[in-house]
Amino acid sequence: MSEHERSSLVVAEETRDDLNFLSGTGSRRAFLRGGAAATIATAVLAACKPGAKGADTTASVTGGTMPAVIPPTPRESADAMDAMHEKRMKAFPAKTEGKGNVLFEPRIENGVKIYEITAKKTPWEVTPGVKVEAWAYNGMVPGPQIRVREGDRVRVILHNELPESTVIHFHGVEVPNDQDGVGFMTQPPVKPGESYTYEFTAPNPGSHMYHSHHNSTKQVSLGLLGAFIIEPKNRANEPHADLDTVLILNDGLGGYTLNGKGFPATEPIVAKLGQTLRIRYMNEGMMIHPMHLHGMHMTVITKDGWPLPAPFRCDTLNIAPGERWDVLVKCTNPGTWAFHCHILPHAEAETGMFGMVTALIVKA
Amino acid sequence: MSEHERSSLVVAEETRDDLNFLSGTGSRRAFLRGGAAATIATAVLAACKPGAKGADTTASVTGGTMPAVIPPTPRESADAMDAMHEKRMKAFPAKTEGKGNVLFEPRIENGVKIYEITAKKTPWEVTPGVKVEAWAYNGMVPGPQIRVREGDRVRVILHNELPESTVIHFHGVEVPNDQDGVGFMTQPPVKPGESYTYEFTAPNPGSHMYHSHHNSTKQVSLGLLGAFIIEPKNRANEPHADLDTVLILNDGLGGYTLNGKGFPATEPIVAKLGQTLRIRYMNEGMMIHPMHLHGMHMTVITKDGWPLPAPFRCDTLNIAPGERWDVLVKCTNPGTWAFHCHILPHAEAETGMFGMVTALIVKA
Amino acid sequence: MSEHERSSLVVAEETRDDLNFLSGTGSRRAFLRGGAAATIATAVLAACKPGAKGADTTASVTGGTMPAVIPPTPRESADAMDAMHEKRMKAFPAKTEGKGNVLFEPRIENGVKIYEITAKKTPWEVTPGVKVEAWAYNGMVPGPQIRVREGDRVRVILHNELPESTVIHFHGVEVPNDQDGVGFMTQPPVKPGESYTYEFTAPNPGSHMYHSHHNSTKQVSLGLLGAFIIEPKNRANEPHADLDTVLILNDGLGGYTLNGKGFPATEPIVAKLGQTLRIRYMNEGMMIHPMHLHGMHMTVITKDGWPLPAPFRCDTLNIAPGERWDVLVKCTNPGTWAFHCHILPHAEAETGMFGMVTALIVKA
Repeated sequence: MSEHERSSLVVAEETRDDLNFLSGTGSRRAFLRGGAAATIATAVLAACKPGAKGADTTASVTGGTMPAVIPPTPRESADAMDAMHEKRMKAFPAKTEGKGNVLFEPRIENGVKIYEITAKKTPWEVTPGVKVEAWAYNGMVPGPQIRVREGDRVRVILHNELPESTVIHFHGVEVPNDQDGVGFMTQPPVKPGESYTYEFTAPNPGSHMYHSHHNSTKQVSLGLLGAFIIEPKNRANEPHADLDTVLILNDGLGGYTLNGKGFPATEPIVAKLGQTLRIRYMNEGMMIHPMHLHGMHMTVITKDGWPLPAPFRCDTLNIAPGERWDVLVKCTNPGTWAFHCHILPHAEAETGMFGMVTALIVKA
Repeated sequence: MSEHERSSLVVAEETRDDLNFLSGTGSRRAFLRGGAAATIATAVLAACKPGAKGADTTASVTGGTMPAVIPPTPRESADAMDAMHEKRMKAFPAKTEGKGNVLFEPRIENGVKIYEITAKKTPWEVTPGVKVEAWAYNGMVPGPQIRVREGDRVRVILHNELPESTVIHFHGVEVPNDQDGVGFMTQPPVKPGESYTYEFTAPNPGSHMYHSHHNSTKQVSLGLLGAFIIEPKNRANEPHADLDTVLILNDGLGGYTLNGKGFPATEPIVAKLGQTLRIRYMNEGMMIHPMHLHGMHMTVITKDGWPLPAPFRCDTLNIAPGERWDVLVKCTNPGTWAFHCHILPHAEAETGMFGMVTALIVKA
Repeated sequence: MSEHERSSLVVAEETRDDLNFLSGTGSRRAFLRGGAAATIATAVLAACKPGAKGADTTASVTGGTMPAVIPPTPRESADAMDAMHEKRMKAFPAKTEGKGNVLFEPRIENGVKIYEITAKKTPWEVTPGVKVEAWAYNGMVPGPQIRVREGDRVRVILHNELPESTVIHFHGVEVPNDQDGVGFMTQPPVKPGESYTYEFTAPNPGSHMYHSHHNSTKQVSLGLLGAFIIEPKNRANEPHADLDTVLILNDGLGGYTLNGKGFPATEPIVAKLGQTLRIRYMNEGMMIHPMHLHGMHMTVITKDGWPLPAPFRCDTLNIAPGERWDVLVKCTNPGTWAFHCHILPHAEAETGMFGMVTALIVKA
């Protein structure tokens, strides 16, 4: 990561760090604290060992003599660490306030699908007890999922209740230039307290996104992002899928998240044996995230909404910032399968799994 | 980024930082300064508000009483930020001294295309007023674009006027081993003040590169790089393109650049409606850069100069260090379209767009 | 790199730094020391110049007058740097203790291929004289290469002699859920001093991996990883290859390594002119590594073990964490060819090549 990148993330990371202190996951300082916690845990264990002088520690120290602390055995240290891991795993899927990426039901007027979006500061619970101050569309991160059909007339009305100007860019959607949402290039930015209306006919189908394109390094990192899916008019060529899910990857405010939540608050994907699952990956972060599915492979069918002429199979798909990839998973292997970013520090710490981890549950 | 990477960039970043101070873009310290500037701007605004005590501030402070500073409204803060963004956008395309990647006209002797290249320290203006001390081929970054035809006899004469030894490696070009330009593996490095001659028959066609392969982490970062394109002998299989452009991505000295310049000094690509544009991406940096085009998609036709058996479409193409990808863009959507790296901190700061941003202008 | 990533690597980097001091490669501090060494070298050169006052330096200083030190010429500085580069190159391939990725001969009982694996702390020599304390499978990094055939009955017996619990996950292998090796998801972690048995019938063929999936950010970084290759039952569709080699990329303990060793201790690949080489890339690190081969191109034939429907050619292949890619190289160009990660700071420092560098030697 460059100085540019580091600098832009500093505030978010310091915030995350403090938050991580609460949850025990994550950053360097949290690691140290985690280490300290582990030391305490093992010291307590040592104190409880038969014959240990642990109980006399305070008195001994007061009396000026060193206590005979017996260091924990590897087994005791392992048990202390494993207890943290187990607790994290058992908490999954953990309840948190707020759910992002909820399907957006439009208001329809004269055949136009109208999506009213308010951009506003919103407290957002990333993992249980860990709240960040997000900048959100309609109070959720990711913003509500817009799903229209190719040829639909679409109107998006943006109300800016943020302390900064903003705009909405429809990433991947081939709109007319004046609807592209780039501050000072295709429109003036929308000032705090003002509204702005975008309108276009849904063009190229596929898995796209909408997000801020004004002071975007900050605004997208804070949460101004969502899925914008255009279903094809002619569904004859669409591959069959029993389930259709969106997985928005992010590494801004709130740390490493899938659809706005970090493990164990991420949502598992539940399928029945034999079903076909479609996953639409979207990377709204600043880093790559190679997503790895256990137990089954993925068939990659589209790139940025465009069908691949030669779909290929894999179990680890590298998704770069701004990219969307659609895959199909034939759910042939029953069980609860880990599903995570394979940059390991995005998924597991000394204290257990966190961040970009979820599960695919295939029910027999 | 690893310690290795950080360490190797430290000097460049410190330099960039100081430079960024001038332009107001970029690194952490510049961000802070930018913040300070914004604070000053909004304080000035506050002082100008009707009834504000701003004008009395100095006297009040002298007199030992605190002035009643009225904080700016969100609208005023937004206006101050937007003014910076607008200024940056309006400056595009900004004039700077020097232009890189200029087509290199060879001297021809006995049917041999001769390219004489001097490697030398060169002041290089990255954005208006921001000059860095580059190490350049023939006084430009990227070096002059070499474009030959498959089967051409090519001679490259390197004159080393740098304070270090150097070599030229023809990246992607399948030359005989002794022409491969790897210090102490295929040749002795060329000492300061000395010259060296490479000669070969242009082999595999495609978008390739030439750059230093001696102390390369430093030398390539400082600018010793350029495009080396070999056009196929048989052009029958070449896709039609009205325009053919090279986009060299870099993240070394001078920060995030396209063809050696940072926004707003990057060069827009100008096409007429209906034309087909070929873009040859080349990554000479140390980081990935997923390039995102607004308004239209790209059809990816070659990888490292080799035709893809199954060209695919996308709007965001992830380009890793050392990779080259050729794409075609059918310019069907008129307007001025943002075109940038989608790692947002490579493209936009609090003070506006910078770095790896340009535009595709499609004229109706 | 995120704060998460940095934090998890801090200890490893500090270690590496001290180690690099010995070998003169690598990190920031080593760079500074390298610089100091170069200064000393050139100062010595200066002192040896005819007429230099070098010999009087101490006396002069004592006497209170400044010595007339003649700064080295660029040529002298270049010679000093080049000497370091040459020494590094001439050391290749350097001998070190220990070899990873050695083919694992199973014990066969009742038709079951049995692989007994002990996970244990192991001193590991990364480059000559540079030893790190690895966590290794059977005393080597990468662990022994497991190579079975589709349909084989396979038993892996893990003995945990580490101070932490651990598990083995068979990355990419579509085993039944209870054999997937994810702590607290598919099994309890295996405690220090305990053993655990995995057993399954080798399913989907291809280039896979095995590694820890418990406290994995630490455990995989320290060396608990290896290749797990399943050859197809029906070899009729396998492409012909005269040589079949595995290249495991890593960036954890020991820095940037290929099969557990850093240049110049990496192993060259030796082929005869006209032979076809198969390379199985596996990324067990936390960063991308775009591997670049000089002189010849690669034809990419599988992704994560799955045959690509449209194999493509390239000379630089970007490999993300968790990914495996198989390529074929037709060895048509004789000579010793550089073969390295093209993130240059993973491959070359001021002191010469290091880390993720090896060579493909094509013998005429």
